[in-house]
Amino acid sequence: MKLAYKIWLDSDGKAFGDGPYELLCLVEKTGSLHQAAKQMGMSYRKAWLLIQAMEKRLGFVILDRQVGGLSGGGSKITAQAQEFMKQYDIFRIEARHALEEIYGKYFGVTEQEEKT
Amino acid sequence: MKLAYKIWLDSDGKAFGDGPYELLCLVEKTGSLHQAAKQMGMSYRKAWLLIQAMEKRLGFVILDRQVGGLSGGGSKITAQAQEFMKQYDIFRIEARHALEEIYGKYFGVTEQEEKT
Repeated sequence: MKLAYKIWLDSDGKAFGDGPYELLCLVEKTGSLHQAAKQMGMSYRKAWLLIQAMEKRLGFVILDRQVGGLSGGGSKITAQAQEFMKQYDIFRIEARHALEEIYGKYFGVTEQEEKT
Repeated sequence: MKLAYKIWLDSDGKAFGDGPYELLCLVEKTGSLHQAAKQMGMSYRKAWLLIQAMEKRLGFVILDRQVGGLSGGGSKITAQAQEFMKQYDIFRIEARHALEEIYGKYFGVTEQEEKT
């Protein structure tokens, strides 16, 4: 038996979670929402709608759109969104540690630990 | 913005969570899986399959079936399952407190707290 969970931030609907976090990390890495969506096996349209919904629910701009240029433009994560991503990452790591500790206390070690 | 999450116990599939916990509480209260399923708006067949899957995944018997008698029989939670339910209840309360504390640390108070 092992612990399973999903955590997300809600604001009249799903505002942020691991999927969006991964998408934004890929945008940072590739400098392109097109590329980021592609690497996640997600349509560009879906990624775009997701960003729009997140911006509305979180209340700040996530993507700086840069149109034109030799590369045909790209997308950059705003400073505010970068800060938010850092907070979210620390939050989810701390949440994971806490949940694993509490699970261990009541139900013993997890399957992963049993195997080592 | 507020914290949202789902926690469950997994053993090659969903083994236990809040839904099953609620179902078993109702079986304890009513002494009948029929009644418990009804109160949860669940078909008896679905409740029965859920119990069977849980017993398989958790590895112990959950329901003592009592057939016959004036009342036409009923269902009782086994002592082992009662113990497990207690553990699960403490586990989920502790998990909730930990997650709320960590959420508050990184994202401020929850919507519920803001309203009070």
